[in-house]
Amino acid sequence: VTFDLVLVGFGHVTRRFVGLLAEYRSDLLRQHGITTRVVGIGTRRHGCAYAAEGLDAEGLAGNQRDRPIGEPFDGPTIDFVTQSVRKAAAAAHEGRLVVVEATTLDIGRGEPATGHIRAAIEGGAHVVTCNKGPVAFAYRQLAIAAERAGRRLLFEGTVMDGVPIFNLARETLPAVTVVGFRGVVNSTTNYILTAMEQGQPFAEALAEMQAMGVAEANASLDIDGWDAAAKTAALANVLLGASMTPHDVERRGITEETGRRAVEARAAGRRLKLVARAGREGSVIAARVAPEELPEEDLLAGLEGRQNALILHTDLLDEIAVVQRSASLTQTAYALLSDLITIARDTPQSLRQGQQGHTL
Amino acid sequence: VTFDLVLVGFGHVTRRFVGLLAEYRSDLLRQHGITTRVVGIGTRRHGCAYAAEGLDAEGLAGNQRDRPIGEPFDGPTIDFVTQSVRKAAAAAHEGRLVVVEATTLDIGRGEPATGHIRAAIEGGAHVVTCNKGPVAFAYRQLAIAAERAGRRLLFEGTVMDGVPIFNLARETLPAVTVVGFRGVVNSTTNYILTAMEQGQPFAEALAEMQAMGVAEANASLDIDGWDAAAKTAALANVLLGASMTPHDVERRGITEETGRRAVEARAAGRRLKLVARAGREGSVIAARVAPEELPEEDLLAGLEGRQNALILHTDLLDEIAVVQRSASLTQTAYALLSDLITIARDTPQSLRQGQQGHTL
Repeated sequence: VTFDLVLVGFGHVTRRFVGLLAEYRSDLLRQHGITTRVVGIGTRRHGCAYAAEGLDAEGLAGNQRDRPIGEPFDGPTIDFVTQSVRKAAAAAHEGRLVVVEATTLDIGRGEPATGHIRAAIEGGAHVVTCNKGPVAFAYRQLAIAAERAGRRLLFEGTVMDGVPIFNLARETLPAVTVVGFRGVVNSTTNYILTAMEQGQPFAEALAEMQAMGVAEANASLDIDGWDAAAKTAALANVLLGASMTPHDVERRGITEETGRRAVEARAAGRRLKLVARAGREGSVIAARVAPEELPEEDLLAGLEGRQNALILHTDLLDEIAVVQRSASLTQTAYALLSDLITIARDTPQSLRQGQQGHTL
Repeated sequence: VTFDLVLVGFGHVTRRFVGLLAEYRSDLLRQHGITTRVVGIGTRRHGCAYAAEGLDAEGLAGNQRDRPIGEPFDGPTIDFVTQSVRKAAAAAHEGRLVVVEATTLDIGRGEPATGHIRAAIEGGAHVVTCNKGPVAFAYRQLAIAAERAGRRLLFEGTVMDGVPIFNLARETLPAVTVVGFRGVVNSTTNYILTAMEQGQPFAEALAEMQAMGVAEANASLDIDGWDAAAKTAALANVLLGASMTPHDVERRGITEETGRRAVEARAAGRRLKLVARAGREGSVIAARVAPEELPEEDLLAGLEGRQNALILHTDLLDEIAVVQRSASLTQTAYALLSDLITIARDTPQSLRQGQQGHTL
C-alpha cells in the first residue's frame, strides 16, 4: 500500500525524515509492504504545496531553508491541513493518509498544532508528531477523537527522540501500571549544568547548544524548564492518565545561581540535575520540574552532557529505566519513521504489498 | 477466547505465574478478551496431570513443593508434552493452546527444554518460556519451526526478567539495526562483587543470594559466568542474528581474587563488573563474559546489588540503555504473562470476547 503523507512544518527534523524515507525505501517495502509519497507540505512562512501524484520532497528538503516550498498560502496553516486532507479524501478513506505534524512548540496553548491534528483526524488521516504541544495540552480529547475515527495518533518523538517510551509502555508492558516517573528529559539544561560544573560560564554553554541546533531558538523554553514541563505533562497525560497542561507542572528552571549550586554539589560528591517527575498523590497527579541534588549513585546523577533518562515506577516491575546516550536530529526524525511503521503494521495485510513473513 | 495452558515445570516462577493469572483474570478478559485455563502440568519429579476441562492450578500452586501434582509419569517429560498437545489438538488447531516452558537451565545442551518446545510447536501450540536454554542453544531452528507452524515463540523472561528487551527490539525499534550490546545481566555475581567491595566474604555473599532464591542452586552457573553466557548467546542469536551457543561465548567468571580486584578498583575510583558483550567483528559475531574494570561514569559501573542493565548499540539511535532496578520472582512470572498477552493481541479479534476498544 502507498501511504500519502502531508507534512506540516518543514524544518530540520522533517527534512531529515524525508531523507530517512528515501534511505529506507527498500526496507519499508520489503519488511512492511509499504511505499510512501509526500503529497503535501505546509509551512507558515515559506508557502505550501500539494500534488496528488506526489511532490519532489527530497529535492525540496535539499533546498535552502528560506527558499519557498510552493505558492504563498493565504490563510492560517490549519486551512492548508483541512484542504489537504479533503483533497486526499480517497487515501484518508482507505486509512493510508498520514499527517506529519512537526511545527514548533507553542508553550502558551499548544496551538496551532493541536488544531492541525484535530483537523487531520476529522479528515480521516492518521497523525504522527514530534511536537510536544498537542499531547501536553490536549492528549485526552485528541486520543478520543482518534479512537472514534479509527485512526492512530502517535508521538514517540516528543520525549527522548526515537528512544521508545510511549511505544514501550503501550506495546511491551501489558498488565503493568505505571504509577509515576522521574527523569532528566531536557538535553540543553543538562549540558549547561555539566559544563558549568567544569567551569564554563552559563551563557557560553547555552550559546554552544544553540549553535548546535539542540537548544530551542527561544532559550526560555529550555532554561526556564518549559520544554521539560511540556514533556512531563505529555508523559503524565499518556502514562498516568492525567489531564494536565504544562502550566499545571510546578516548574523551576536553571540560572547562573543553579550552576554555582551544581559546582558545590559536585564538590560534596553529589550532582545537581533538572529533574522532571510526576506521580499520584492521593487522588491528584502532581508533577514538577526543578533542580534536585542527587546522590552520586542515582542513575540520573550520572547523566553527562546531552544524555537523557526516564525511570518509570511501576506496580509489577518496580522501576525500569531507559537511557538515551546521545541525541541527534536523526533520532528525532527516526521517531517519525518508527511511528509511521507502527501504523503500517496495523494496516490490514490485504492492503499491503510485498509483505514478507516476519521472523520472531 | 479461552487459552488452554500446559505448564512444563512447576517451580517458584510457574506457581507465581498461576497466581498472576488469577489476580489479572478480570483485566485479561476486559482488556484482551481472553480467559485462561491450565489443562496440563508436567514435572520431572512430582508427576503430571492433564484435564481437558481444566485443573485446579491455583490449588496445586499453593501446595508444598514436594507434594505430587498428579500421577507419576512413566517416561521423559517430552512424552508428557507430546501427549498433552495431542490431547489438546482442538485448541492447538484454533491457535489457543500455549505451552509454558519453565524447567531449569541445562547448560550442557539446553535439553530437554529445547525438545519440549519443538514438540509443542509441532503440535500446534504457541510457546512462552523463561528458560534461557532453548534460545541460547537453538533459537534459529525453533524460530523457523514456529514461523512455519504459524505459532509464536516468546521468551521475554530469559533476560532481565519482565523488563522488555526482546519485545522492545521487536515491537518498538522498527528499521533500527542492533549492531552489538554490552550489559550486566547476572544478579548474583553483581551482588557478590558489590558485597565484596564492602568487605563481605565471597562465600557469605553467595550463600545470601542462594538463601533468597536468586542464585542458581548450582552455584557454578552464576559464578563461573554460565548464566551470563547463556543470556549473551540468547541476545546475540535474537538481536544480532548469530547462531551461537553458550559454549561459543568467551567466558570468565568471578572468584575471591576478582573480589580483591573489585576492592582495588573501587579505591582507584573505578568499578569491577561482570560484563557481557557481543558484537560483529568482521564477518563473525564475537561474544564474551568477563570481569571488566569500568570508569565510574560508565552506566554499568553504577549498578548496585541485583540491578541489571543492557546497553544496545544501534545504527540509527546510537546507544539505548535499559536498566532493571530490582529483580523478583514476580518479575519473571510477569514476563510469562506479558508474552501470553502478546499472543492474545495477535489472535484475530473474531476469536476474542469482551474486547474493549483500546486507547492509544
